[in-house]
Amino acid sequence: MLNETHIAALQALVSDKGLVRDAGGMAAYENGARYDEGRAALVLRPQTAEEVSAVVSYCVKNGLPLVPQSGNTGLVSGSTPDNSGTQIVLSLDRMVKRFDLDLDNRSLRLDAGFTLSEINRRLEPRGLFFPIDLGADPRLGGMIATNTGGSRFLKYGDVRKNTLGLTVVLADEAGTVLDLSSDLRKNNTGIDWKHVFIGTSGAFGIVTECVVNLERLPRQTATAYLVPASGAHVMPLLRAMEERLGAYLSAFEGMSKNAVSAALSHVPSLKNPFQGGNIPDYVILAEISRTWEPREGEQPLDAVLESVLAEIWESEEAPLADAFVGPAHEMWSLRHALSEGVKHLGKLIAFDLSFRRGDIMAFCDHMKLEMPARFPDITICDFGHIGDGGVHFNLVVPKDSQAATDQDFEKRLRDWIFSVAVERFSGSFSAEHAIGRKNQSYYDQYTPRQVRTLAAGLKAITSPGALGTVRF
Amino acid sequence: MLNETHIAALQALVSDKGLVRDAGGMAAYENGARYDEGRAALVLRPQTAEEVSAVVSYCVKNGLPLVPQSGNTGLVSGSTPDNSGTQIVLSLDRMVKRFDLDLDNRSLRLDAGFTLSEINRRLEPRGLFFPIDLGADPRLGGMIATNTGGSRFLKYGDVRKNTLGLTVVLADEAGTVLDLSSDLRKNNTGIDWKHVFIGTSGAFGIVTECVVNLERLPRQTATAYLVPASGAHVMPLLRAMEERLGAYLSAFEGMSKNAVSAALSHVPSLKNPFQGGNIPDYVILAEISRTWEPREGEQPLDAVLESVLAEIWESEEAPLADAFVGPAHEMWSLRHALSEGVKHLGKLIAFDLSFRRGDIMAFCDHMKLEMPARFPDITICDFGHIGDGGVHFNLVVPKDSQAATDQDFEKRLRDWIFSVAVERFSGSFSAEHAIGRKNQSYYDQYTPRQVRTLAAGLKAITSPGALGTVRF
Repeated sequence: MLNETHIAALQALVSDKGLVRDAGGMAAYENGARYDEGRAALVLRPQTAEEVSAVVSYCVKNGLPLVPQSGNTGLVSGSTPDNSGTQIVLSLDRMVKRFDLDLDNRSLRLDAGFTLSEINRRLEPRGLFFPIDLGADPRLGGMIATNTGGSRFLKYGDVRKNTLGLTVVLADEAGTVLDLSSDLRKNNTGIDWKHVFIGTSGAFGIVTECVVNLERLPRQTATAYLVPASGAHVMPLLRAMEERLGAYLSAFEGMSKNAVSAALSHVPSLKNPFQGGNIPDYVILAEISRTWEPREGEQPLDAVLESVLAEIWESEEAPLADAFVGPAHEMWSLRHALSEGVKHLGKLIAFDLSFRRGDIMAFCDHMKLEMPARFPDITICDFGHIGDGGVHFNLVVPKDSQAATDQDFEKRLRDWIFSVAVERFSGSFSAEHAIGRKNQSYYDQYTPRQVRTLAAGLKAITSPGALGTVRF
Repeated sequence: MLNETHIAALQALVSDKGLVRDAGGMAAYENGARYDEGRAALVLRPQTAEEVSAVVSYCVKNGLPLVPQSGNTGLVSGSTPDNSGTQIVLSLDRMVKRFDLDLDNRSLRLDAGFTLSEINRRLEPRGLFFPIDLGADPRLGGMIATNTGGSRFLKYGDVRKNTLGLTVVLADEAGTVLDLSSDLRKNNTGIDWKHVFIGTSGAFGIVTECVVNLERLPRQTATAYLVPASGAHVMPLLRAMEERLGAYLSAFEGMSKNAVSAALSHVPSLKNPFQGGNIPDYVILAEISRTWEPREGEQPLDAVLESVLAEIWESEEAPLADAFVGPAHEMWSLRHALSEGVKHLGKLIAFDLSFRRGDIMAFCDHMKLEMPARFPDITICDFGHIGDGGVHFNLVVPKDSQAATDQDFEKRLRDWIFSVAVERFSGSFSAEHAIGRKNQSYYDQYTPRQVRTLAAGLKAITSPGALGTVRF
């Protein structure tokens, strides 16, 4: 248990602002973005890998549990302390010094505490960006711990694909600083250890520095709403788009009628873009983009999209019921307002699932069929990243219903949905949010015994100390 | 030691053709693609993961060392037995049954014994391919064990980036079959274990089945030779191309004058494409490609390349001394003939290095300056994948020179070049060939002690049995 001797010792390892112990100051680190309300024993805010190492070493030696916290925007209780009041939050929010751009290598070496928006604000004048597109504004360390994907995964991949190297502090007695911070794009001289720390919720080490790949900013985009002829036409439509647009295609986002309708009803700035105001059962937001400025002799991107859609419209499979090209800003505004809109309908119960791309619509259809009998109060408001198999399977119960306050209700619902997703459709119960306390029991349940045994072994040889919110 | 009881027991675990013990039959498995001549105790050719598991379990229990072998096209003695005559080769060459294409998911689930050429021959009618472009024709399991890159890395990435899932047999007493064979593109529910088996030369397990990402075949390409104004202009040229061509750019390959000259002199089918036959000091082969058929209204790809090169030609940095667009087949023929050409000059000593992209030319310049005094017999014939930082730093000594037969000469040369590459330029001593017996001592030397300790720990919990040619 933390005592005053520990606090004095830890204070000596970080600078003045590096230790927070008053209730007011700690509050921001105790509450999660959407769900959590925990209690921290203390909050530490080191500024360098050496400070992190010293703090970790001290805590491991003294049996003090640490929870690394980055931007704290996650949705699975991965970065907040539990209710015990015994966990120390180690925040990355002051690790924001190093920011070394390598233009020739198109890479960036930086401290793990930078926010995504700050990174891209600094890169914008160079025509570059870190190509992970999210609604939230996480810090980099947490993006690595969750391996976030986002809306442009289809074109740029996830955080893993855009990470060249890492520096990590292990939770062992030495507070080992593990330098995996290669800038190389190609290097096969042993195990690529960084992957152990990507997507594993900070349980194997604390990321302090990163080398990431950068991409050129899009300079031309064209967007369209596509209405598939039916759910069964979504995949033929995606395949037709990929066939004709290749690397141009930068988003292929699906939106259900319920989600669109909730956004249009509750977010005043949105206009209903559909003919006669009739919202289709399912709509795809497709985006194509080019990273260069328009050139003479080159067909404008809107015209490319128009002509491709015309070709698909007339194709034998006839996957399109309707399609219209429109202004990017307006079209994305609707997409980004879906979460907000759905929340107005009642209590939101969110699922971050993924499937083989061809199974997404089958899963949603299955759920629409089975849900009313099992959970009659639920409205399904799904949307997702069809191009990479991700589904934000968001459900709503009315705020005044019994279900909204019944803890057991949510557990039964989660258990059932995950069992269908994982067992029946070979899907994932966490596509891009990783694991936290919220998903621990599902990790235990759905991870094969052999894999769990290996993970426990790996935990023992990397970070045997109490680190993070997940038990591997 | 292998005895007749073992042989009978192993024969019972595989089918008739699954065991080879005559010298003639074993020869093909004992000799490497370029360097190795080892001696096998036995060759086993299982057909299923179950057979692999049974064989591995038997061998681990009886202390019989196994060397997994795939296409045996590697260049670092990673898949051939040593000279002891005690190692059993476990070949994947009969693991060629399962081949399940998922068109919606744009992925392929297949046995690990398929050759790259066979995979792409089968995919071609669907307009798809496994986007790793190599001169050799390896089998898939070995491509995973080395994490090969190739000439289109810049656009498609390496094997790692194109692997969704694996099934692996561990070298433990049970011969554990580890099912990591996810088809999902997005899944963050724990450690992504497949990365332990990618690029680690088969030491941690034997890959039996893979799920890989597929890409659409290019339908239009345009190629050009670019002559940079000087070595210092190579990076500005690459950046100018990336800025103006983005995802169109599918290759940016550098070729030194010595390498080009060797190919033109010794490969009769090639024509000298340069004005007046004057080979420039350095030439870039640039390729751009699109995955769709030419469309009405769209500028032809040759014209795109011409206009971009004109723009770069006139740009302030003036990185180009010369440039000409030409037929893809002829231009690539020269690129692919470089290795062959260089071999005609004498004894080839090859290095597979990588650097931050901005350091490639600096490394080559450094070597040109230092080499004559240290190793006067050497001719440098480098070429490489400038777009991803890879350099095939190929050296030649005259066949009749003392250096060509002096074993110590080659060791001194390797030691020096690797020390400059790794210590002075923070580069890699194995960009895309991984580690084998040939690179073992450099792994030991250049891998930080902490990382080696972790690797040994990981080896102990995954595959404690004697597996492969590398000691981790």
